[in-house]
Amino acid sequence: MVEDTDRVEDEQTRDDSSYVLNRRAVAAILYAVDTEDQTQLTELMEPLHAADIADLLEQLNSYDRARLIRLYDREFDGDILSELDESIREEVIATLRPQVLADAVRELESDDVVDLIEDLEEPQQEAILDALEDSDRVAVEQAMAWPEGSAGRLMQREVVMAPEHWNVGQAIDHLRNSDELPEQFYHIVLVDPRMHPIGNVTLGKLMGSRREVPLIDLTEDMFRVIPATQDEEDVAYAFNQYHLISAPVVDEEGRLAGVITIDDAMAVLDEEHEEDILRLAGVSDDSSLSDSVADTAKRRLPWLAVNLLTAILASLVISQFEETLSKFVALAVLMPIVASMGGNAGTQSLTVAVRALATKDLTGANVWRVIRREVVVGLLNGLVFAVSMGIIGLVWFNSPIIGYVIAVAMVINLMVAGLAGTVIPVVMDKMGVDPALASGTFVTTVTDVVGFFAFLGLAGMVMM
Amino acid sequence: MVEDTDRVEDEQTRDDSSYVLNRRAVAAILYAVDTEDQTQLTELMEPLHAADIADLLEQLNSYDRARLIRLYDREFDGDILSELDESIREEVIATLRPQVLADAVRELESDDVVDLIEDLEEPQQEAILDALEDSDRVAVEQAMAWPEGSAGRLMQREVVMAPEHWNVGQAIDHLRNSDELPEQFYHIVLVDPRMHPIGNVTLGKLMGSRREVPLIDLTEDMFRVIPATQDEEDVAYAFNQYHLISAPVVDEEGRLAGVITIDDAMAVLDEEHEEDILRLAGVSDDSSLSDSVADTAKRRLPWLAVNLLTAILASLVISQFEETLSKFVALAVLMPIVASMGGNAGTQSLTVAVRALATKDLTGANVWRVIRREVVVGLLNGLVFAVSMGIIGLVWFNSPIIGYVIAVAMVINLMVAGLAGTVIPVVMDKMGVDPALASGTFVTTVTDVVGFFAFLGLAGMVMM
Repeated sequence: MVEDTDRVEDEQTRDDSSYVLNRRAVAAILYAVDTEDQTQLTELMEPLHAADIADLLEQLNSYDRARLIRLYDREFDGDILSELDESIREEVIATLRPQVLADAVRELESDDVVDLIEDLEEPQQEAILDALEDSDRVAVEQAMAWPEGSAGRLMQREVVMAPEHWNVGQAIDHLRNSDELPEQFYHIVLVDPRMHPIGNVTLGKLMGSRREVPLIDLTEDMFRVIPATQDEEDVAYAFNQYHLISAPVVDEEGRLAGVITIDDAMAVLDEEHEEDILRLAGVSDDSSLSDSVADTAKRRLPWLAVNLLTAILASLVISQFEETLSKFVALAVLMPIVASMGGNAGTQSLTVAVRALATKDLTGANVWRVIRREVVVGLLNGLVFAVSMGIIGLVWFNSPIIGYVIAVAMVINLMVAGLAGTVIPVVMDKMGVDPALASGTFVTTVTDVVGFFAFLGLAGMVMM
Repeated sequence: MVEDTDRVEDEQTRDDSSYVLNRRAVAAILYAVDTEDQTQLTELMEPLHAADIADLLEQLNSYDRARLIRLYDREFDGDILSELDESIREEVIATLRPQVLADAVRELESDDVVDLIEDLEEPQQEAILDALEDSDRVAVEQAMAWPEGSAGRLMQREVVMAPEHWNVGQAIDHLRNSDELPEQFYHIVLVDPRMHPIGNVTLGKLMGSRREVPLIDLTEDMFRVIPATQDEEDVAYAFNQYHLISAPVVDEEGRLAGVITIDDAMAVLDEEHEEDILRLAGVSDDSSLSDSVADTAKRRLPWLAVNLLTAILASLVISQFEETLSKFVALAVLMPIVASMGGNAGTQSLTVAVRALATKDLTGANVWRVIRREVVVGLLNGLVFAVSMGIIGLVWFNSPIIGYVIAVAMVINLMVAGLAGTVIPVVMDKMGVDPALASGTFVTTVTDVVGFFAFLGLAGMVMM
């Protein structure tokens, strides 16, 4: 048990109050590693949850990580492996003694083993599968037969179920006589004779009802069956949208194959968000803070390369106006402002659209209204900044024409930003491409090109 | 019960397969509204979950929304109000007949009422509080006494608890004899005589154990107590990190005050992510797709205004080099490339840092290593693009000096991008400011200023 109240006093910032791994704890653990004091290390690690130990390992450099793992040795728990970031999982597995690894994975539930091994290389996969007992290995291999990222991979196979004609007393007696109930379960799934799930009964309802009440009278209003091939992203969406706690998973014939619980769905939701936010920024979604310098550089390179191409495209637009620019250097000074404002406004519209697509709030029913809204918003804000920039252009360069040119370019670019920021992600989504992935480059390319073209082209027309 | 298999065939895209509100359903509902066919409307709305109805209302324009609500009338459920986006909640509440509103809110649990009214204006709050029964109103008012966004507001007050000395049989008998158990509960909270929670027993364990087993022997390993004043963001983090299903909430004296379940935590996690992603893009985090044009424009304006100021700052840097620019127009053509690459690289580093701060992966223990990594990554990628841009500069403008200048400026700006992209959010976090909120502007200001200064300054030095 972790006492929150004691810990809060140790911490300075609000954010740390729900977190055990403070700087002092890390320093003490590293000191124990330095002095090779196994007893002290075990004692310091004792209060830590597997998730905290995984975080700790992620924060260390690989030298300290290996020393800690070797000193901790047999205390190493299978759950730590599950919690560990993929980027260092292979390294940690390679550091563990084979016997410690075998003991660690044997403690895990089959769905956790699946999650653990699906991204490992062949030899490490084999090593872990070999360490499992036969029945567990079969369960893992069956789960691995479902596509990656599907409900079939996510589900746990142990389901507590009951025939649809049972009553409360029969269910309770059955539970009491079961040798092995899953660690965590919240519902009993009612099945028909063909093993099709037909309803959920919560344990709370079961306990609060008389023995002779038929289970079928106690089923939850909200009941959804998840196909094993369904994408885990859609599963997480359904849990969040419909406040599900657990839902049965069925195979192609509609037969009960497993169950997914809300904690799994929450983990997927968290991953999807992480993916969206990183993709929007042009960072590879499997990158992590524990990646090496070389990996990080390599992962960031492609996006920067795409950006370079689009930046060159914008430069090509500018180069069409070299004559104008050489006559009026003030244009070179002001032109990044138009592009920058367009890029920002476009990113605003884009982010709203990407989020709304992810939460299924942006649909065929309202897409035209949203596009119109974004363009009108661009017009309104464009007018505001047109006036201010017009005045700045006038005062700074003492030229009403420059003021007029930048004002008009601003209005045009902000309207285009609203249009491109909404239409591009919608089209990408229709085409089955994740709109978070590449929309950003397209949108800023559009606003850069339109911004430079409108500003310099207009200047060329009225000033030359 | 919703049959997934039937629905999948109606839908074209993968994303819609977990979703009932397809275009056809919306059209049919709107047709029923147009023809004022109440029977048909009720029938069409029947299979929809409250969350889907809320989504539907959000997608309609306000005219159709009001017509639908008036036709749906008495069927309007309290849960729809809970699911509704804040931006149109007030409007919908104002459209409902007082009697329908009163019936709707009376169905809700007290924590849902709290969530519903906390953002409403005074008169609407009063109207809803007046509609409640006395005991519910007191419960809501007590919850509202906790700070906004705290665990106290989030928790439900109905807790199933048992004295620490009870055994399984006593607990089961107690449950069976309770008149009113909460809708959803998963644990029994054990309390000491001073009402301090000391452990959780899952219902599954309770059902699987013999009557004479003491409850204290069945408590979960993982048990965390949440102070009612704790920020809901930290609560969500703890649920996600430690795979909690439910956790007791305590008041200042450590006495059991309520319980928070994982579905509440999941909703908070979802909101926090939404907030982060929108803030990173400079969009106000309470904005929504259903906002009016005027509201949207107003909400986006401040961020664009900040961006305008920073863009002007960058222009001021450029204006220092007017003489150089007027001699070498090629510089004006190429200069946005350096700034754009810097801005992109900075956003990459920034986003990784902001996420790592949010997930508490970036801490005092590894901050220096991460900063060093980002700067070295900037150096490596800077070198790659320095070579390519140097060649492009040489070929395009037939000038080795321009190639050299842009290459050096690129390396400098990408290193600065890595540095600023990490240091700025870390410093903001230390200062207690949400790093997602304003880091973006600071980072791109730094990369713009450094990019223009390095490129034009260097050019001035070597070419003039």
